[in-house]
Amino acid sequence: MTATLTVELGERSYPIVIGDGLLGGGFDLSEYLAGDDCLIVSNDTVAPLYLDALKANLDGKQIESIALPDGEAYKTLATAESILDALVRGHAGRDTTLIALGGGVVGDITGFAAACYMRGVSFVQVPTTLLSQVDSSVGGKTGVNHARGKNLIGAFHQPSIVLIDTDTLSTLPVRELKAGLAEVIKYGAIADIGFFGWLEDNIDALLAKNAAALAYAIQKSCELKAEVVADDEREAGRRAILNFGHTFGHAIEYCQGYGDWLHGEAISVGMVMAAELSNIPKADSDRLSSLIERAGLPVTPPVVGAKAMLDAMGLDKKVLANKMRFVVLKKLGDARITADYDANRLAKALEAANA
Amino acid sequence: MTATLTVELGERSYPIVIGDGLLGGGFDLSEYLAGDDCLIVSNDTVAPLYLDALKANLDGKQIESIALPDGEAYKTLATAESILDALVRGHAGRDTTLIALGGGVVGDITGFAAACYMRGVSFVQVPTTLLSQVDSSVGGKTGVNHARGKNLIGAFHQPSIVLIDTDTLSTLPVRELKAGLAEVIKYGAIADIGFFGWLEDNIDALLAKNAAALAYAIQKSCELKAEVVADDEREAGRRAILNFGHTFGHAIEYCQGYGDWLHGEAISVGMVMAAELSNIPKADSDRLSSLIERAGLPVTPPVVGAKAMLDAMGLDKKVLANKMRFVVLKKLGDARITADYDANRLAKALEAANA
Repeated sequence: MTATLTVELGERSYPIVIGDGLLGGGFDLSEYLAGDDCLIVSNDTVAPLYLDALKANLDGKQIESIALPDGEAYKTLATAESILDALVRGHAGRDTTLIALGGGVVGDITGFAAACYMRGVSFVQVPTTLLSQVDSSVGGKTGVNHARGKNLIGAFHQPSIVLIDTDTLSTLPVRELKAGLAEVIKYGAIADIGFFGWLEDNIDALLAKNAAALAYAIQKSCELKAEVVADDEREAGRRAILNFGHTFGHAIEYCQGYGDWLHGEAISVGMVMAAELSNIPKADSDRLSSLIERAGLPVTPPVVGAKAMLDAMGLDKKVLANKMRFVVLKKLGDARITADYDANRLAKALEAANA
Repeated sequence: MTATLTVELGERSYPIVIGDGLLGGGFDLSEYLAGDDCLIVSNDTVAPLYLDALKANLDGKQIESIALPDGEAYKTLATAESILDALVRGHAGRDTTLIALGGGVVGDITGFAAACYMRGVSFVQVPTTLLSQVDSSVGGKTGVNHARGKNLIGAFHQPSIVLIDTDTLSTLPVRELKAGLAEVIKYGAIADIGFFGWLEDNIDALLAKNAAALAYAIQKSCELKAEVVADDEREAGRRAILNFGHTFGHAIEYCQGYGDWLHGEAISVGMVMAAELSNIPKADSDRLSSLIERAGLPVTPPVVGAKAMLDAMGLDKKVLANKMRFVVLKKLGDARITADYDANRLAKALEAANA
């Protein structure tokens, strides 16, 4: 079964196609290429699994490919430069298309390289992890990390299509599946209490990789994200609610030098901390913590120190005019952005990092 | 006297303010900043001359500044990264503003850094060379060179204002003034035969740095460029006529490893070669060569070899679907883009590089 959503962004609108059996020739991707040639960017882990299958969707096109080293540690300007080098070596023109085959790191770097090559060429997202399928592949945020902060270097650059073959989840390690569920839970928590309830009912099916449950969760997540992005492409306002849990989560990742914890794990704890900062009934924050725990995700931070986390947050992109801004819950299923938070609650939320 | 033009780009529209005495507090730039702080990016040559004067236009703002090494050789991703590092070090937020104070290299790198920092922050152009005043500061093309090609890495990112103080030309070396005149002549050649005639009448006044003549030439050039850019911001079509002479010129620069010739010198020869490729009366191409010569600019290429130039052109951004495209003159004062050119004329135009 295949579902197609549209991210509505005027002339930059694009489809998200979700289904099984799409790779291996099951979907004609060639019509989404700007010209006759493309560069597939993947990594050491994913390329052996799906590169050949993807090529079958590009009949008649001239295909080059490169494999990046796998891992967030390689999400750097230097890696982006290696993609640009490959494009120059291949004499790629303005009508070339980059295709990102892999998880969020591959998608973010590839999209950024596409944004920068000749001031912007087309790119396609073929996300192969749950996290990238429900989050990073949709919405046009691309970029790399700076040694002192995550995603500090980047561009808004929308893909021409997002192709999600749910079959790729069969090879996804369970730990990464869980990390993806963190973002899925986030959508319920910030924007759709009904979906949150569905997740409470179906979390075990998702963890068991039930195909129908995963397809529904992906579709629902993409719908919620696409709607927020269409409203506010460049995050002038509302889009920032998608960062729920991310201010704390990024600080955890930064304090650990990236890599020890998966992004989804860090934001799981981040969501618990953001819920503590929110002025909501304890029953609701307990519901959130409980679902996160049932998904096999952490709810307490690593012992990096409250002070270190605060320092790290000083570098977060959500800093505006030197005032910290947080995404908090008005209630479960509804989020808002505020700089008017209770400092005591913040201190209390961070305390866990001292324990 | 101050003239203000507008580059009409909808919500990305911005003013170009041209006049004398604008630096040193003569124009309140602070209202064009996104927030309370800014980073002025200049270079070793320009900073000692105009940095303090610029600061006087930013009353009440928190100002940081850095000076890049001067020269096209430093128009690299590494230099852009040094600006990004400075922003991170200074804990710059999304509402910071970058201000480019200098020539085209400073403007292009600074604009690119602004495009990439946190996926895009504001920037202001304060061009201090004739070339950057009439060309690179207007239109939002930003970027850096790749070792194998000019401007291969970049972004479209429009400034929030272009502030042109014609007094800065008093310290501009004559060779650079002439190089700037190359682009001025280009506007006449591709888009305004009346302006071309005015240049024939006033070239000596321009070379003598007559203030009124320079102000008029800058204003007219910016008008012509702004009109083309407003039509076609991302160079889907007509904007490419601004590249008249640039396919050849870039090849010359590339074959020389950038730096030996100034950009304006290389495109002077490029315009002569592009006129040879054009199917126009010899009297008209002679008029163009003659004006270029009177401006003290070269009309014959360095001996880099016709073959080397052709190879270099294979990497040019104007390559589309592996077919070379050139900007040629329909007649003097009117240009078009074509892939349907006379190969014999091309060979003949390139021959000069063998001599």
